[in-house]
Amino acid sequence: MTFSGKSLDVVFYPKSVALVGASREVDFYINTISASKLKENFFLVNPRYSEVLGFKCYSSILDIPKPVDYAIFAIPARLIPKVLEDCGKKGVKVVHIYSSGFSETGLEEGKRLEEEILNIAKSYGIRIIGPNCMGVYCPESGLFFSHDLPSDEGSVGFISQSGGQAISFIFKGMLRGFRFSKVISYGNALDIDFVELIDYLAEDSKTSVIGAYVEGLRKTKGLLETLKKASKIKPLVILKGGQTEDGARAAASHTGVLAGSAKIWEGFLRQVKAIQVENFDEMADIIVGFLYAFPPKGKGVTIVTTSGGSAVIHTDLCVKVGLTIPKFSEETQNRLRKFIPLAGTSIKNPLDAWPAFQYGTLPDALNVISQDENIHSLIIEVQPEEFKAYTTTDPTIVDKFTAIIGKTCKTIMNEQGKPVMIAVTRSIYPELEAKIKTQLQNMNLPVYHSVYDAAKTLSELFSKFTSINTS
Amino acid sequence: MTFSGKSLDVVFYPKSVALVGASREVDFYINTISASKLKENFFLVNPRYSEVLGFKCYSSILDIPKPVDYAIFAIPARLIPKVLEDCGKKGVKVVHIYSSGFSETGLEEGKRLEEEILNIAKSYGIRIIGPNCMGVYCPESGLFFSHDLPSDEGSVGFISQSGGQAISFIFKGMLRGFRFSKVISYGNALDIDFVELIDYLAEDSKTSVIGAYVEGLRKTKGLLETLKKASKIKPLVILKGGQTEDGARAAASHTGVLAGSAKIWEGFLRQVKAIQVENFDEMADIIVGFLYAFPPKGKGVTIVTTSGGSAVIHTDLCVKVGLTIPKFSEETQNRLRKFIPLAGTSIKNPLDAWPAFQYGTLPDALNVISQDENIHSLIIEVQPEEFKAYTTTDPTIVDKFTAIIGKTCKTIMNEQGKPVMIAVTRSIYPELEAKIKTQLQNMNLPVYHSVYDAAKTLSELFSKFTSINTS
Repeated sequence: MTFSGKSLDVVFYPKSVALVGASREVDFYINTISASKLKENFFLVNPRYSEVLGFKCYSSILDIPKPVDYAIFAIPARLIPKVLEDCGKKGVKVVHIYSSGFSETGLEEGKRLEEEILNIAKSYGIRIIGPNCMGVYCPESGLFFSHDLPSDEGSVGFISQSGGQAISFIFKGMLRGFRFSKVISYGNALDIDFVELIDYLAEDSKTSVIGAYVEGLRKTKGLLETLKKASKIKPLVILKGGQTEDGARAAASHTGVLAGSAKIWEGFLRQVKAIQVENFDEMADIIVGFLYAFPPKGKGVTIVTTSGGSAVIHTDLCVKVGLTIPKFSEETQNRLRKFIPLAGTSIKNPLDAWPAFQYGTLPDALNVISQDENIHSLIIEVQPEEFKAYTTTDPTIVDKFTAIIGKTCKTIMNEQGKPVMIAVTRSIYPELEAKIKTQLQNMNLPVYHSVYDAAKTLSELFSKFTSINTS
Repeated sequence: MTFSGKSLDVVFYPKSVALVGASREVDFYINTISASKLKENFFLVNPRYSEVLGFKCYSSILDIPKPVDYAIFAIPARLIPKVLEDCGKKGVKVVHIYSSGFSETGLEEGKRLEEEILNIAKSYGIRIIGPNCMGVYCPESGLFFSHDLPSDEGSVGFISQSGGQAISFIFKGMLRGFRFSKVISYGNALDIDFVELIDYLAEDSKTSVIGAYVEGLRKTKGLLETLKKASKIKPLVILKGGQTEDGARAAASHTGVLAGSAKIWEGFLRQVKAIQVENFDEMADIIVGFLYAFPPKGKGVTIVTTSGGSAVIHTDLCVKVGLTIPKFSEETQNRLRKFIPLAGTSIKNPLDAWPAFQYGTLPDALNVISQDENIHSLIIEVQPEEFKAYTTTDPTIVDKFTAIIGKTCKTIMNEQGKPVMIAVTRSIYPELEAKIKTQLQNMNLPVYHSVYDAAKTLSELFSKFTSINTS
């Protein structure tokens, strides 16, 4: 029995869902799905209760008066074979096993139980998600697996072997200004595995960029072709867990898979033109870059700050990540002098933009810089502290600044085809920092935590540009 | 004319201060010093005004009816020789030249003016800070150079060639829970330079750790001996700006010095046992480590999380920065089983501490772990999101958690001699994040932004421990 990628539609878009083993302990499924688009077709099952959290509870899945596409199992591992048989009889198409206690325990019993479950599932044509995972988050269809997840849709598809990391990364998206088309935490990967999920998301029209956290693979069939294909269609950003020996040991006890050597993975991911990252912050950085900007066509970057002093350090950091900080051309310098009323020495890269903002010539100045042929991208550093002193005399100064910066960034990206990143630094005024970030993120701009993070991202995006254009 | 380190006392502890060139433009000196301990002995000078911001203004420094130890010059560069002569006649001991327009312009005229100023200063025995810098921040004596700087004292001494970075780093200290004994932004270093300042702070009883941002040196006499001596007395953390070719060019136009090769500096700093960092976040990380913890005696670290899923990634990151994540000994595992009512597989390193917190056995569990002979340090990861769901049923849950964690960390550090770092991750609930951080920082605990940052710091501190014990 094989399935094509398309057959996973029912995994993300079930028309009806049952939660087997409903109790207060899994209120994060009950409260969220019962408030979603699925609410009319969401059923609780537990022979011990007639009602859970105010919702009717059936004794068996067979008692539900409507068809059920998708069942979530929150029951002890040993009870699963029996209930899975019931699901088969009911015509359930997908079973997500939230429960743990399988191969990840390292015990023979857990592995045997997994085999038994897989055999029953195959005999009924049921697809299995998990076990030992959070399942699916798809705001479009109404599937949720935690409180506080956004109900608005985005275009990031995220695949995670770890449930905790799946939730954390959705939160990270909220913090960084992006949302998700589909997230799946697939745990021990007894049936539905990495390759099939990548294949599905590659073809999914609602997904424009794919992120994946993988510890190890059960099935490697089609891996190379699928990843190659996917990374041609859309950016594919991968974090490999268990790269070190100690990490691989942790992975084995976490999701029961063998992690594989770091070197092999690194070479492999380079070969398939996926982008490998070291942690989830880097993954979010890259995703923001693809969503709200695009790869630069060269290494020359200009840094524009609202505070003069950090030119030297920023220059060092940009060079270290593989970019260059070219001098402005004579022409650019001459044109800038008309807008920025400063001593000649200050017309340099990095540029202090505060005077231009104060004199109202910032859009013109940025526009001139972006036309310099040695400059392929821009990073604008915003230090919230700089605004604090002015907010008393002009309470709208932040709104004015973000409106000007936002409009100018978009113009440069559209007209010059050069990406513009904005780095809002950590501030002693957290509300001011949050306000600036949120305003810029709401304009769908690429916002970073530091110039370094933005520079590292531009360098990665440039590699991606180069790899595409030399393939 | 040479001065010993001690002679710089007047630079940090003047009894009276005059601001020459007082105007609204330099309100950050006027408003801050006039509200400090120096207020009775702070005088404004400007022949153009009789009053600035409500304070009396003298026409010349010679008109001030009291002696003046320390003068701040905020006047055009070309006027400085004349006013400096007046200062000599007045008996001023230190002149801080805020003004720019000297060697950093690259013009011959600027260099000539610097020479003239130095000659006049020498003839009167006046010490010069700058030019082209913010000067001194010393909350103990009442010197300030920016709005919003804390008036409470700390024990970090910070030397910065850049004024903007001096201010930013003080803000970073506020964010990270530390304060300063003395900060000096010394700009072009015409007279008072890096070596002399390090020498002074090394002997300063109010300073327990020294941070320095240096772009280049005018004087190198005594450099090796001074740094060697200083780093034996207290931790010396150095960020070298202008390490790359582009960065060196930026440094030349910033403070008029030659930056020197990255390799030479790196080897040199290793030789003198200073700790070199790449950016100011790393500098703050190291400082927090020395202030509120201490170097571990080995590489074995345990990670304790409030969320189970990140064990694999954390393990990888710790190993990559040079630490190890040892398995707990049989004895530790057996002892933990008594406290943590969980399946056997969860008694592992990294450890999920949430159950122990909920069952009230967290202090016991952490205490047992810290006694494992393979564990030399602990990192506790706190994800603010974990608390959100509980704050509705128990509004004091965060206070309880930070109180327990804080007390336990201190006990382990005192009794076991093993450092305990706390990593509070960036949250979608900024108020909750800030609350947890502030509560822990107020207990003088080492708080980090991520497990990675804490691990990198532990690894650096361990190197320092090794270097001290092999020297």
